[in-house]
Amino acid sequence: ACRPACDATMLMEKMISSADEGQTCSPLAGPGSGPHNRGAVGFVLVHAGAGYHSESKAKEYKHVCKRACLRAVDRLRAGALAVEAVTAALVELEDSPFTNAGTGSNLNLSGEIECDASIMDGKSLHYGAVGALSGIKNPVLVARRLLSEAQKGKLSAGRIPPCFLAGKGAQHWAASHGIPPCPAEKMATKFSLSAYRRNKRKMEVAERVEAECYQTKRARQAAENNRSACLDTVGAIVVDQEGNVAAAVSSGGLAMKHPGRVGQAAHYGCGCWAQNAGNAVPYSTAVSTSGCGEHLVRTMLARECSTAMQAEDAHQALLEAMQTKFISSPFLVTEDCVLGGVIVLRCCKCVEDQTSQEDAHTLVEFLWSHTTESMCIGYMSAQDSKAKTHISRLPPGTVAGHSLAIEGGVCRLDLINPTALLLC
Amino acid sequence: ACRPACDATMLMEKMISSADEGQTCSPLAGPGSGPHNRGAVGFVLVHAGAGYHSESKAKEYKHVCKRACLRAVDRLRAGALAVEAVTAALVELEDSPFTNAGTGSNLNLSGEIECDASIMDGKSLHYGAVGALSGIKNPVLVARRLLSEAQKGKLSAGRIPPCFLAGKGAQHWAASHGIPPCPAEKMATKFSLSAYRRNKRKMEVAERVEAECYQTKRARQAAENNRSACLDTVGAIVVDQEGNVAAAVSSGGLAMKHPGRVGQAAHYGCGCWAQNAGNAVPYSTAVSTSGCGEHLVRTMLARECSTAMQAEDAHQALLEAMQTKFISSPFLVTEDCVLGGVIVLRCCKCVEDQTSQEDAHTLVEFLWSHTTESMCIGYMSAQDSKAKTHISRLPPGTVAGHSLAIEGGVCRLDLINPTALLLC
Repeated sequence: ACRPACDATMLMEKMISSADEGQTCSPLAGPGSGPHNRGAVGFVLVHAGAGYHSESKAKEYKHVCKRACLRAVDRLRAGALAVEAVTAALVELEDSPFTNAGTGSNLNLSGEIECDASIMDGKSLHYGAVGALSGIKNPVLVARRLLSEAQKGKLSAGRIPPCFLAGKGAQHWAASHGIPPCPAEKMATKFSLSAYRRNKRKMEVAERVEAECYQTKRARQAAENNRSACLDTVGAIVVDQEGNVAAAVSSGGLAMKHPGRVGQAAHYGCGCWAQNAGNAVPYSTAVSTSGCGEHLVRTMLARECSTAMQAEDAHQALLEAMQTKFISSPFLVTEDCVLGGVIVLRCCKCVEDQTSQEDAHTLVEFLWSHTTESMCIGYMSAQDSKAKTHISRLPPGTVAGHSLAIEGGVCRLDLINPTALLLC
Repeated sequence: ACRPACDATMLMEKMISSADEGQTCSPLAGPGSGPHNRGAVGFVLVHAGAGYHSESKAKEYKHVCKRACLRAVDRLRAGALAVEAVTAALVELEDSPFTNAGTGSNLNLSGEIECDASIMDGKSLHYGAVGALSGIKNPVLVARRLLSEAQKGKLSAGRIPPCFLAGKGAQHWAASHGIPPCPAEKMATKFSLSAYRRNKRKMEVAERVEAECYQTKRARQAAENNRSACLDTVGAIVVDQEGNVAAAVSSGGLAMKHPGRVGQAAHYGCGCWAQNAGNAVPYSTAVSTSGCGEHLVRTMLARECSTAMQAEDAHQALLEAMQTKFISSPFLVTEDCVLGGVIVLRCCKCVEDQTSQEDAHTLVEFLWSHTTESMCIGYMSAQDSKAKTHISRLPPGTVAGHSLAIEGGVCRLDLINPTALLLC
């Protein structure tokens, strides 16, 4: 049933050719296509949010995506598995003051930073998440630690280890597991503080005006706000040398959110998903999402995309999933526009010559799609010397929240020990 | 495609006949089968946890289930819709000092009560949830309020209302929406406090002994603990006079859990699910789960059961879902036993005589299934004078965590205005 396309016809129309930096990484790159570490294999795809990226910000976003890819690839080259590599990418994305995750996150109504993050291991199908977490520089490290603690099995007296911790409890758990607290003033940036003050003023004005002139203003403010408030979540998906997949996501959440609000980045099945082949599915898939949290939660977009990617044609499957399970989802019929984006990958061991196992290699099909005006992504294979980055934009004439962009590519890997992949 | 069984052959083998109180409510009860409110229609099914119910506790549990059913039916008789009725049932279940929800909840590691609750409206597909919430007598009321606030649309300045709040933020949100705080000492009971002290001692002993004799002891403690720690969540599912469905769930969580731990009762798709027919599905379904939170989260059991219930044979579909999506789930392969239970209902407008619309009525198929030693349930139609209650137990010779019990019934309703139901 699982029959991946082993030739270039699989390439997406608007694909890698549209990526805006001419580097050595290319679709269908065979082994040795880059100068570095011919033995090392693996692949990473990251995003720095689906939302609206002005040209002036684009450069910063692309830089951080590039660094995040490099971090993950460094780990892959050192022999690390997918979970470790995806964590490394996330730490870099969180540390950037430009992304809405970790340092530089949006402030909530009370002027505090509260972060959500989660990670999933496609091999064990274990999952770790934190929600509304304050005072931790890298929320993904707490999610990662929850994941690894859960993998160890039961706690004393047969207690089941938690997979999701929120608020103060999460902060204390982190401290008791050697993850140090970070002062609030170190996580807020000049930009996030001024955005908070600006939003606060805007809100006060809006509330005054809305009281007088309810409908019109509300609709207008909504449109305005959606433009920037959804520069949201960051995330990454990875396949390692054994063919294991992992996914992670991290977010400061919506600007001016209520304290305690937990968004999709901490919701199981909504922010990220990773599932190795064989765990009831023919393809290994990994997904990370970004956008308006409540839209992504109510549609369980990460898991829906993973399920969709089990169909034969990855591009068509993602296109249909974004249309029927997101834009036209029965769960979002009352929403005036549906804002989000995903990065997905799937991989499968592929034999070109059926008579010989020697030619077996792995195809990684990777895609991104968004209904927001733009989405910033980066990707890199462990064999490449540099990451490729790209700001994907909706086609001219289309409307954010109602239309979508979809792009992607295919990368050929020669895995060292592809135990996690089924033979197709 | 949707073809419900309109005859008694649909009745489950171990069904209503095994319910242990001979009351007027019966499967396939036509209108007027009870003495009360012939015009009023609707149906409620509640649970007071899947776990282990001793004979001595069984009576209390059955009483609270009965009262919860009555509360919901009172609201249905007053013309309330499903969401309001399911909330009323939950308030009663939470207020019982015997259930692990609201008053009398398990204490966490720090000796505090932190509750999870959620509610879903099958009509709007909106959802509200709270996690790790302290100091609120009825967590379901906060979830209910989040749901109704979300249904009102955007907040000032176009902000999207939250669907999930955790911790202190949730408590403050509740206060600012008129839900008063409740002192901690009023929510803990003599029983929950003594259980906390007992568990604490057991944990200390276990930690000492496990340090010496790691493996054997750990396995034994696990087995012991599982017996009682999963007397967990309470929940309810309702269909109202229009055929709308709603589901809710509430839990104090695992005893001695880490502060901030959020279990399935607050996880979207895991604790409860409700979806009217027409919202991309042929049958209206409602589900509420109970058991070990992490097992229910990682398998997304509520949503999986709802999806399964779209198949033709409800009993067979639930049986298969519990076996393949829960007991044998690839997400739980490392678990030594898989503990949980569900209540589900589905309904469909049914025409016995295809030539006449006059005989149209609604069939409500309701089921419960569990892998725990027992599960306490109650159910009632708005036409009945009393609720039926029942402690379902695993068949003799079967092993909790590996086997399952499944029972259920069918109830015929003549809805007043079944707008929410498709004609099958």
